[in-house]
Amino acid sequence: MLIDCGEGTQMQLRKYSVHMQRISHILISHLHGDHFYGLPGLLSTMNLLGRNKRITVYCPPELPSIIHQMLSIGDNKLAFDIEFNILSFASKNCIFEDEKIEIWSFPLKHRIPTCGFQIKEKPKPYRIDAKKCQEAGVELHHLPNLLAGKNISINNVEYDFQKFTWAPKHSFSYSYCSDSAYDEKLIPFIESSDLLYHEATFSSNHLDRATKTFHSTAQQAAKIAQKSGVKKLILGHFSSRYTEVEALLEEAKQIFSETECAEDGNVYRLI
Amino acid sequence: MLIDCGEGTQMQLRKYSVHMQRISHILISHLHGDHFYGLPGLLSTMNLLGRNKRITVYCPPELPSIIHQMLSIGDNKLAFDIEFNILSFASKNCIFEDEKIEIWSFPLKHRIPTCGFQIKEKPKPYRIDAKKCQEAGVELHHLPNLLAGKNISINNVEYDFQKFTWAPKHSFSYSYCSDSAYDEKLIPFIESSDLLYHEATFSSNHLDRATKTFHSTAQQAAKIAQKSGVKKLILGHFSSRYTEVEALLEEAKQIFSETECAEDGNVYRLI
Repeated sequence: MLIDCGEGTQMQLRKYSVHMQRISHILISHLHGDHFYGLPGLLSTMNLLGRNKRITVYCPPELPSIIHQMLSIGDNKLAFDIEFNILSFASKNCIFEDEKIEIWSFPLKHRIPTCGFQIKEKPKPYRIDAKKCQEAGVELHHLPNLLAGKNISINNVEYDFQKFTWAPKHSFSYSYCSDSAYDEKLIPFIESSDLLYHEATFSSNHLDRATKTFHSTAQQAAKIAQKSGVKKLILGHFSSRYTEVEALLEEAKQIFSETECAEDGNVYRLI
Repeated sequence: MLIDCGEGTQMQLRKYSVHMQRISHILISHLHGDHFYGLPGLLSTMNLLGRNKRITVYCPPELPSIIHQMLSIGDNKLAFDIEFNILSFASKNCIFEDEKIEIWSFPLKHRIPTCGFQIKEKPKPYRIDAKKCQEAGVELHHLPNLLAGKNISINNVEYDFQKFTWAPKHSFSYSYCSDSAYDEKLIPFIESSDLLYHEATFSSNHLDRATKTFHSTAQQAAKIAQKSGVKKLILGHFSSRYTEVEALLEEAKQIFSETECAEDGNVYRLI
């Protein structure tokens, strides 16, 4: 899953040895150039390197036509299909689901229609306490119910599933808020995420500039993190006026201590 | 003058401290992505950094509409004008001229319409031999003729201008052949250039691949350089299959010794 694709994304993938053909889904949050100008080049290079596996792109409605034009203008033909799925900016939507994860999109507050995304693991099965099961005479056909957290009957006696199970392992979630003004409406969408990326284009000194351009200050990003009860916050999308971002980190940490600044190539493992 | 603008050009300009606002003209040789996918981002960044000075783009006819779309899709408005001039691929054309230089475009032999470019200094004025002029009584009003290499009359006697002048300084020229199969029709367009950039996508082992894709081998590029009587050849556009290009350089040097391989950030001074 690749979220947003600014100019040079293909170079960065190569630099950090991310195998680009493993990307099956690309999510484009909005149509400012720094979030999609790298898409034609990435798709061209995937093609040049022999891709024939379909790719799925989630994006605003104006994107498919321009990407098709950019790709076809030089008489190139892709050897793989692009499936475009159009995002809705009105509400929270489940845009993808497989047996393990769900991806949700939700509206951000920016100058043009913009989506945030949450990638979350589905609830995991309860874990069977084999010893307790054996002692009580639990049989194989009871297991699906126990795994799903449902009570079972043995010889017409109902047993609480918790007697035979441990709680499921934690289901992790990552939320991504690309470009957004401070907006408490985001909180229910991202609540309790293990990891939240939230833009912090400006420091609090430039609050007026942040408000005017529908961006956030580092302090505002930290407030959203705190009110959402997330476990960790990553700040990014810093204005190029800041040659170093220590001050932004500090002002955020005063509100939400579990904050880091994004750096190229950083890897966060949710396990 | 920027010739071609692949993805990441703006990053490279920054890396090598080339001040992007000094670029007044951009020449796009053809519409394969590696030659123009960086243009929307470069123009956006110029705008973000406060440009208000017009930029002139020379390009194939399909480009202006797609660039306008890429720039306007996110509701951005440029604070400067883009003047698009459409290239002709039928013949050699003078596309730009000021008091010092001319830029010519000429057709290359590629899969889609593609132009090469030559940037050349105009002929420089003859240089006045002040001592000889004084001795012969040359007057101020004779100077324009002498500078232009025309004979003058003093007291009804005609004098050869060469008596009072030295030859003009050399007018330098740079020729650029982006993507092209081996094509001797290029020779008159680039003849006697001080510096020639010619693509060398393949080594001679892959001559069949070069022919099929309308690219050149390093040896073919060297042959063009030799037959055109240029002073120096730069090879570039190497296929990513070559992790090092020493072999391509060697095969070219056997035909044309004044050959170098292009490297990011190289500077060639014509003085």
